[in-house]
Amino acid sequence: MTDALVLDAAAQDLLFREARTANTFTDEPVTDEQIQAVYDLVKYAPTAFNQQPLRVVLVRSPEARERLVAHMSDGNKAKTQSAPLVAVLATDHEFHEELPKLFPAFPQAKDVFFSERPVREAAGSFNASLQIGYFILGIRAAGLAAGPMTGFDRDGINKEFFADGDHEVLAVVNIGKPGADAWFPRSPRLEYDEVVTTV
Amino acid sequence: MTDALVLDAAAQDLLFREARTANTFTDEPVTDEQIQAVYDLVKYAPTAFNQQPLRVVLVRSPEARERLVAHMSDGNKAKTQSAPLVAVLATDHEFHEELPKLFPAFPQAKDVFFSERPVREAAGSFNASLQIGYFILGIRAAGLAAGPMTGFDRDGINKEFFADGDHEVLAVVNIGKPGADAWFPRSPRLEYDEVVTTV
Repeated sequence: MTDALVLDAAAQDLLFREARTANTFTDEPVTDEQIQAVYDLVKYAPTAFNQQPLRVVLVRSPEARERLVAHMSDGNKAKTQSAPLVAVLATDHEFHEELPKLFPAFPQAKDVFFSERPVREAAGSFNASLQIGYFILGIRAAGLAAGPMTGFDRDGINKEFFADGDHEVLAVVNIGKPGADAWFPRSPRLEYDEVVTTV
Repeated sequence: MTDALVLDAAAQDLLFREARTANTFTDEPVTDEQIQAVYDLVKYAPTAFNQQPLRVVLVRSPEARERLVAHMSDGNKAKTQSAPLVAVLATDHEFHEELPKLFPAFPQAKDVFFSERPVREAAGSFNASLQIGYFILGIRAAGLAAGPMTGFDRDGINKEFFADGDHEVLAVVNIGKPGADAWFPRSPRLEYDEVVTTV
Protein backbone atom coordinates (compact mmCIF):
# COMPACT_ATOMS: atom_id res chain seq x y z
CA MET A 1 0.00 0.00 0.00
CA THR A 2 2.96 2.34 0.51
CA ASP A 3 2.97 3.35 -3.17
CA ALA A 4 0.04 5.61 -2.38
CA LEU A 5 2.14 7.51 0.18
CA VAL A 6 4.52 10.37 -0.55
CA LEU A 7 6.24 10.17 2.84
CA ASP A 8 9.49 8.26 2.46
CA ALA A 9 9.78 4.76 3.91
CA ALA A 10 12.37 5.73 6.53
CA ALA A 11 10.04 8.40 7.91
CA GLN A 12 7.10 5.97 7.87
CA ASP A 13 9.17 3.56 9.93
CA LEU A 14 10.49 6.21 12.33
CA LEU A 15 7.07 7.68 13.11
CA PHE A 16 4.68 4.74 12.73
CA ARG A 17 5.78 1.31 11.56
CA GLU A 18 8.86 0.67 13.70
CA ALA A 19 8.19 3.09 16.56
CA ARG A 20 6.80 1.53 19.72
CA THR A 21 5.53 2.67 23.11
CA ALA A 22 8.50 2.21 25.47
CA ASN A 23 8.19 0.90 29.02
CA THR A 24 11.92 0.99 29.85
CA PHE A 25 14.58 3.53 28.98
CA THR A 26 18.35 3.94 28.96
CA ASP A 27 20.00 6.53 31.22
CA GLU A 28 20.75 8.85 28.32
CA PRO A 29 19.36 12.30 29.19
CA VAL A 30 16.73 14.07 27.11
CA THR A 31 17.77 17.67 26.66
CA ASP A 32 15.73 20.86 26.59
CA GLU A 33 17.11 21.38 23.09
CA GLN A 34 15.49 18.13 21.96
CA ILE A 35 12.12 19.07 23.41
CA GLN A 36 12.38 22.52 21.89
CA ALA A 37 13.07 20.93 18.49
CA VAL A 38 10.05 18.68 18.93
CA TYR A 39 7.87 21.65 19.81
CA ASP A 40 9.20 23.78 16.96
CA LEU A 41 8.09 21.00 14.60
CA VAL A 42 4.72 19.95 15.97
CA LYS A 43 3.50 23.46 16.75
CA TYR A 44 2.63 23.80 13.06
CA ALA A 45 0.01 21.05 13.08
CA PRO A 46 -3.57 22.33 13.06
CA THR A 47 -6.02 23.16 15.84
CA ALA A 48 -9.48 24.73 15.54
CA PHE A 49 -9.24 28.52 15.43
CA ASN A 50 -5.50 27.95 15.87
CA GLN A 51 -6.29 27.74 19.58
CA GLN A 52 -3.27 25.63 20.65
CA PRO A 53 -4.58 24.77 24.12
CA LEU A 54 -1.83 22.22 24.95
CA ARG A 55 0.49 23.08 27.82
CA VAL A 56 3.52 20.97 28.73
CA VAL A 57 5.21 20.62 32.12
CA LEU A 58 8.65 18.98 31.97
CA VAL A 59 9.25 17.19 35.25
CA ARG A 60 13.02 17.46 35.86
CA SER A 61 13.61 17.87 39.60
CA PRO A 62 13.63 14.75 41.81
CA GLU A 63 11.16 16.47 44.11
CA ALA A 64 8.66 17.10 41.31
CA ARG A 65 9.17 13.57 40.03
CA GLU A 66 8.18 12.19 43.44
CA ARG A 67 5.09 14.39 43.51
CA LEU A 68 4.08 13.10 40.08
CA VAL A 69 4.80 9.41 40.74
CA ALA A 70 2.59 9.52 43.83
CA HIS A 71 -0.42 10.19 41.59
CA MET A 72 0.37 7.57 38.93
CA SER A 73 -1.42 4.22 38.84
CA ASP A 74 0.58 1.41 40.41
CA GLY A 75 1.43 -0.11 37.04
CA ASN A 76 2.84 3.21 35.83
CA LYS A 77 4.90 4.22 38.89
CA ALA A 78 8.17 2.40 38.14
CA LYS A 79 8.52 3.62 34.56
CA THR A 80 7.49 7.16 35.49
CA GLN A 81 10.16 7.05 38.21
CA SER A 82 12.91 5.83 35.91
CA ALA A 83 12.32 7.57 32.56
CA PRO A 84 14.98 10.17 31.65
CA LEU A 85 12.28 12.79 31.21
CA VAL A 86 8.56 12.90 31.99
CA ALA A 87 6.16 15.44 30.48
CA VAL A 88 2.76 16.29 31.93
CA LEU A 89 0.42 17.27 29.09
CA ALA A 90 -2.58 19.43 29.94
CA THR A 91 -5.22 21.59 28.35
CA ASP A 92 -5.52 25.24 29.30
CA HIS A 93 -9.19 26.06 29.94
CA GLU A 94 -8.37 29.74 29.43
CA PHE A 95 -6.74 29.32 26.02
CA HIS A 96 -9.21 31.81 24.58
CA GLU A 97 -7.29 34.70 26.15
CA GLU A 98 -4.64 34.15 23.45
CA LEU A 99 -7.08 33.99 20.53
CA PRO A 100 -6.92 37.64 19.49
CA LYS A 101 -3.20 37.06 18.91
CA LEU A 102 -3.47 33.49 17.56
CA PHE A 103 -6.43 33.96 15.21
CA PRO A 104 -6.07 37.50 13.85
CA ALA A 105 -8.46 36.74 10.96
CA PHE A 106 -11.35 36.90 13.45
CA PRO A 107 -10.18 38.43 16.72
CA GLN A 108 -13.75 38.39 18.05
CA ALA A 109 -13.66 34.57 18.20
CA LYS A 110 -12.65 34.79 21.84
CA ASP A 111 -15.98 36.35 22.82
CA VAL A 112 -18.26 35.06 20.06
CA PHE A 113 -17.43 31.37 20.44
CA PHE A 114 -15.59 30.87 23.71
CA SER A 115 -17.17 33.10 26.35
CA GLU A 116 -18.61 30.07 28.17
CA ARG A 117 -16.22 27.96 30.20
CA PRO A 118 -17.86 24.55 29.45
CA VAL A 119 -17.57 25.27 25.72
CA ARG A 120 -13.91 26.19 26.16
CA GLU A 121 -13.22 23.08 28.23
CA ALA A 122 -14.71 20.78 25.60
CA ALA A 123 -13.04 22.49 22.64
CA GLY A 124 -9.73 22.78 24.45
CA SER A 125 -9.70 19.15 25.56
CA PHE A 126 -10.34 17.94 22.02
CA ASN A 127 -7.77 20.20 20.41
CA ALA A 128 -5.15 19.56 23.10
CA SER A 129 -5.70 15.85 22.47
CA LEU A 130 -4.97 16.35 18.78
CA GLN A 131 -1.81 18.16 19.86
CA ILE A 132 -0.83 15.26 22.11
CA GLY A 133 -1.07 12.99 19.07
CA TYR A 134 1.22 15.37 17.19
CA PHE A 135 3.57 15.60 20.19
CA ILE A 136 3.94 11.82 20.47
CA LEU A 137 4.92 11.66 16.81
CA GLY A 138 7.25 14.63 17.33
CA ILE A 139 9.08 12.76 20.10
CA ARG A 140 9.61 9.95 17.62
CA ALA A 141 10.79 12.47 15.01
CA ALA A 142 13.60 13.32 17.44
CA GLY A 143 14.69 9.67 17.52
CA LEU A 144 13.26 9.20 20.99
CA ALA A 145 10.66 6.79 22.29
CA ALA A 146 7.44 7.97 23.92
CA GLY A 147 5.59 6.18 26.67
CA PRO A 148 2.19 7.88 26.87
CA MET A 149 0.05 7.06 29.90
CA THR A 150 -3.48 7.87 31.02
CA GLY A 151 -3.46 5.80 34.21
CA PHE A 152 -3.20 8.36 37.02
CA ASP A 153 -5.22 10.31 39.58
CA ARG A 154 -6.35 13.18 37.42
CA ASP A 155 -7.56 15.42 40.24
CA GLY A 156 -4.38 14.72 42.17
CA ILE A 157 -2.12 15.82 39.32
CA ASN A 158 -4.31 18.82 38.60
CA LYS A 159 -4.00 20.04 42.17
CA GLU A 160 -0.32 19.19 42.43
CA PHE A 161 0.84 20.80 39.18
CA PHE A 162 -1.88 23.27 38.20
CA ALA A 163 -2.93 25.09 41.34
CA ASP A 164 -4.73 27.79 39.33
CA GLY A 165 -7.65 25.44 38.61
CA ASP A 166 -7.53 26.42 34.94
CA HIS A 167 -5.72 23.37 33.57
CA GLU A 168 -6.56 19.70 33.28
CA VAL A 169 -4.03 16.93 32.74
CA LEU A 170 -4.83 14.70 29.75
CA ALA A 171 -1.74 12.49 29.53
CA VAL A 172 1.67 11.90 31.06
CA VAL A 173 4.44 10.86 28.68
CA ASN A 174 7.74 9.20 29.48
CA ILE A 175 10.49 10.19 27.04
CA GLY A 176 13.89 8.68 26.33
CA LYS A 177 15.89 6.12 24.41
CA PRO A 178 14.32 2.66 24.72
CA GLY A 179 16.03 0.36 27.23
CA ALA A 180 16.18 -3.41 27.66
CA ASP A 181 12.95 -5.26 26.89
CA ALA A 182 11.36 -1.88 26.23
CA TRP A 183 8.12 -3.20 24.78
CA PHE A 184 5.71 -6.09 24.54
CA PRO A 185 5.02 -7.78 21.20
CA ARG A 186 2.89 -5.47 19.10
CA SER A 187 -0.83 -6.00 19.63
CA PRO A 188 -3.19 -6.36 16.66
CA ARG A 189 -4.61 -3.40 14.82
CA LEU A 190 -8.15 -3.23 13.52
CA GLU A 191 -8.49 -4.02 9.83
CA TYR A 192 -9.41 -1.24 7.42
CA ASP A 193 -12.88 -2.69 6.92
CA GLU A 194 -13.49 -2.71 10.68
CA VAL A 195 -12.80 1.01 10.92
CA VAL A 196 -13.74 2.61 7.60
CA THR A 197 -17.17 2.51 5.98
CA THR A 198 -18.39 4.34 2.89
CA VAL A 199 -21.77 5.96 2.36
CA MET B 1 16.69 23.55 15.84
CA THR B 2 16.28 20.81 13.24
CA ASP B 3 19.68 19.29 14.13
CA ALA B 4 18.00 17.72 17.15
CA LEU B 5 15.55 15.88 14.89
CA VAL B 6 16.16 12.56 13.15
CA LEU B 7 13.19 12.95 10.78
CA ASP B 8 14.48 14.18 7.43
CA ALA B 9 13.75 17.74 6.34
CA ALA B 10 11.48 16.72 3.45
CA ALA B 11 9.28 14.74 5.83
CA GLN B 12 9.25 17.62 8.32
CA ASP B 13 8.03 19.90 5.54
CA LEU B 14 5.46 17.43 4.18
CA LEU B 15 3.85 16.73 7.54
CA PHE B 16 4.32 19.95 9.50
CA ARG B 17 6.26 22.92 8.19
CA GLU B 18 4.83 23.32 4.67
CA ALA B 19 1.50 21.51 5.11
CA ARG B 20 -1.53 23.71 5.59
CA THR B 21 -5.22 23.33 6.31
CA ALA B 22 -6.91 23.59 2.90
CA ASN B 23 -10.17 25.44 2.30
CA THR B 24 -10.35 24.83 -1.47
CA PHE B 25 -9.49 21.74 -3.51
CA THR B 26 -8.90 20.68 -7.11
CA ASP B 27 -11.27 18.21 -8.77
CA GLU B 28 -8.73 15.37 -8.57
CA PRO B 29 -10.42 12.40 -6.88
CA VAL B 30 -9.17 10.85 -3.68
CA THR B 31 -9.20 7.08 -4.08
CA ASP B 32 -10.04 4.34 -1.61
CA GLU B 33 -6.50 3.08 -2.17
CA GLN B 34 -5.11 6.36 -0.86
CA ILE B 35 -7.27 6.24 2.26
CA GLN B 36 -6.36 2.61 2.82
CA ALA B 37 -2.67 3.53 2.60
CA VAL B 38 -3.23 6.33 5.11
CA TYR B 39 -4.98 3.97 7.47
CA ASP B 40 -2.37 1.25 7.06
CA LEU B 41 0.22 3.80 8.21
CA VAL B 42 -1.51 5.61 11.06
CA LYS B 43 -3.09 2.51 12.58
CA TYR B 44 0.27 1.80 14.24
CA ALA B 45 0.29 4.95 16.36
CA PRO B 46 -0.53 4.33 20.02
CA THR B 47 -3.79 4.38 21.95
CA ALA B 48 -4.39 3.41 25.59
CA PHE B 49 -4.91 -0.34 25.94
CA ASN B 50 -4.59 -0.38 22.14
CA GLN B 51 -8.26 0.50 22.13
CA GLN B 52 -8.41 2.18 18.68
CA PRO B 53 -11.85 3.76 19.12
CA LEU B 54 -11.73 5.87 15.94
CA ARG B 55 -14.27 5.05 13.24
CA VAL B 56 -14.25 6.69 9.80
CA VAL B 57 -17.17 7.24 7.45
CA LEU B 58 -16.15 8.20 3.91
CA VAL B 59 -18.90 10.32 2.40
CA ARG B 60 -18.89 9.49 -1.31
CA SER B 61 -22.48 9.53 -2.57
CA PRO B 62 -24.07 12.88 -3.51
CA GLU B 63 -27.04 11.98 -1.32
CA ALA B 64 -24.87 11.40 1.76
CA ARG B 65 -22.91 14.58 1.01
CA GLU B 66 -26.14 16.58 1.08
CA ARG B 67 -27.13 15.00 4.37
CA LEU B 68 -23.77 15.94 5.86
CA VAL B 69 -23.62 19.48 4.49
CA ALA B 70 -27.02 20.20 6.02
CA HIS B 71 -25.48 19.78 9.48
CA MET B 72 -22.31 21.79 8.87
CA SER B 73 -21.95 25.36 10.12
CA ASP B 74 -22.63 27.96 7.46
CA GLY B 75 -18.95 28.80 7.09
CA ASN B 76 -18.10 25.14 6.45
CA LYS B 77 -20.89 24.24 4.00
CA ALA B 78 -19.29 25.33 0.72
CA LYS B 79 -15.99 23.56 1.27
CA THR B 80 -17.68 20.43 2.60
CA GLN B 81 -19.82 20.45 -0.54
CA SER B 82 -16.91 20.83 -2.93
CA ALA B 83 -14.08 18.73 -1.44
CA PRO B 84 -13.18 15.60 -3.45
CA LEU B 85 -13.70 13.47 -0.36
CA VAL B 86 -15.10 14.13 3.10
CA ALA B 87 -14.51 11.87 6.10
CA VAL B 88 -16.64 11.87 9.23
CA LEU B 89 -14.47 10.90 12.21
CA ALA B 90 -16.20 9.47 15.25
CA THR B 91 -15.50 7.60 18.46
CA ASP B 92 -17.13 4.23 19.08
CA HIS B 93 -18.54 4.16 22.63
CA GLU B 94 -18.56 0.36 22.46
CA PHE B 95 -14.90 -0.02 21.51
CA HIS B 96 -14.37 -2.23 24.55
CA GLU B 97 -16.06 -5.13 22.80
CA GLU B 98 -12.89 -5.46 20.68
CA LEU B 99 -10.46 -5.30 23.61
CA PRO B 100 -10.08 -9.05 24.18
CA LYS B 101 -8.76 -9.20 20.62
CA LEU B 102 -6.87 -5.89 20.63
CA PHE B 103 -5.20 -6.18 24.04
CA PRO B 104 -4.44 -9.87 24.48
CA ALA B 105 -1.91 -9.14 27.26
CA PHE B 106 -4.85 -8.42 29.58
CA PRO B 107 -8.10 -9.64 28.03
CA GLN B 108 -9.99 -8.78 31.21
CA ALA B 109 -9.44 -5.06 30.55
CA LYS B 110 -12.83 -4.90 28.86
CA ASP B 111 -14.63 -5.69 32.11
CA VAL B 112 -12.13 -4.46 34.70
CA PHE B 113 -11.69 -0.95 33.28
CA PHE B 114 -14.46 -0.30 30.78
CA SER B 115 -17.67 -1.79 32.09
CA GLU B 116 -19.16 1.68 32.69
CA ARG B 117 -20.33 3.60 29.66
CA PRO B 118 -19.29 7.10 30.89
CA VAL B 119 -15.76 5.80 31.48
CA ARG B 120 -15.72 4.34 27.97
CA GLU B 121 -17.04 7.53 26.44
CA ALA B 122 -14.35 9.65 28.08
CA ALA B 123 -11.50 7.26 27.29
CA GLY B 124 -12.72 6.66 23.76
CA SER B 125 -13.15 10.35 22.99
CA PHE B 126 -9.62 11.12 24.15
CA ASN B 127 -8.01 8.23 22.30
CA ALA B 128 -10.05 8.78 19.13
CA SER B 129 -8.89 12.41 19.25
CA LEU B 130 -5.27 11.26 19.35
CA GLN B 131 -6.08 9.09 16.33
CA ILE B 132 -7.59 12.07 14.52
CA GLY B 133 -4.28 13.87 15.02
CA TYR B 134 -2.48 10.87 13.53
CA PHE B 135 -5.02 10.67 10.68
CA ILE B 136 -4.56 14.33 9.72
CA LEU B 137 -0.81 13.78 9.48
CA GLY B 138 -1.43 10.54 7.55
CA ILE B 139 -3.47 12.44 4.95
CA ARG B 140 -0.48 14.73 4.52
CA ALA B 141 1.80 11.68 4.27
CA ALA B 142 -0.21 10.72 1.17
CA GLY B 143 0.55 14.07 -0.43
CA LEU B 144 -2.97 15.29 0.20
CA ALA B 145 -4.26 18.29 2.11
CA ALA B 146 -6.60 17.95 5.07
CA GLY B 147 -9.28 20.43 6.06
CA PRO B 148 -10.37 19.40 9.56
CA MET B 149 -13.53 21.04 10.89
CA THR B 150 -15.37 21.05 14.22
CA GLY B 151 -18.10 23.52 13.27
CA PHE B 152 -21.22 21.38 12.82
CA ASP B 153 -24.40 20.21 14.55
CA ARG B 154 -23.00 17.29 16.50
CA ASP B 155 -26.34 15.75 17.43
CA GLY B 156 -27.54 16.15 13.86
CA ILE B 157 -24.57 14.26 12.41
CA ASN B 158 -24.78 11.61 15.11
CA LYS B 159 -28.43 10.92 14.28
CA GLU B 160 -27.87 11.12 10.53
CA PHE B 161 -24.82 8.87 10.29
CA PHE B 162 -24.76 6.80 13.49
CA ALA B 163 -28.31 5.68 14.15
CA ASP B 164 -27.17 3.08 16.68
CA GLY B 165 -26.55 5.76 19.31
CA ASP B 166 -23.15 4.25 20.06
CA HIS B 167 -20.97 6.71 18.15
CA GLU B 168 -20.18 10.39 18.49
CA VAL B 169 -18.72 12.56 15.74
CA LEU B 170 -15.57 14.43 16.79
CA ALA B 171 -14.44 16.01 13.52
CA VAL B 172 -15.22 16.20 9.82
CA VAL B 173 -12.25 16.36 7.46
CA ASN B 174 -12.16 17.52 3.86
CA ILE B 175 -9.50 15.71 1.83
CA GLY B 176 -7.96 16.47 -1.55
CA LYS B 177 -5.30 18.32 -3.48
CA PRO B 178 -5.26 22.02 -2.53
CA GLY B 179 -7.01 24.31 -5.02
CA ALA B 180 -6.71 28.01 -5.80
CA ASP B 181 -6.20 30.27 -2.79
CA ALA B 182 -6.44 27.18 -0.61
CA TRP B 183 -5.37 28.83 2.61
CA PHE B 184 -5.04 32.03 4.54
CA PRO B 185 -1.63 33.32 5.66
CA ARG B 186 -0.37 31.12 8.48
CA SER B 187 -1.43 32.39 11.89
CA PRO B 188 1.10 32.72 14.71
CA ARG B 189 2.12 29.82 16.89
CA LEU B 190 2.74 30.10 20.62
CA GLU B 191 6.37 30.38 21.58
CA TYR B 192 8.07 27.49 23.35
CA ASP B 193 8.21 29.44 26.61
CA GLU B 194 4.48 30.13 26.45
CA VAL B 195 3.70 26.41 26.28
CA VAL B 196 6.48 24.55 28.08
CA THR B 197 7.48 25.01 31.73
CA THR B 198 9.93 22.99 33.79
CA VAL B 199 9.56 21.93 37.40
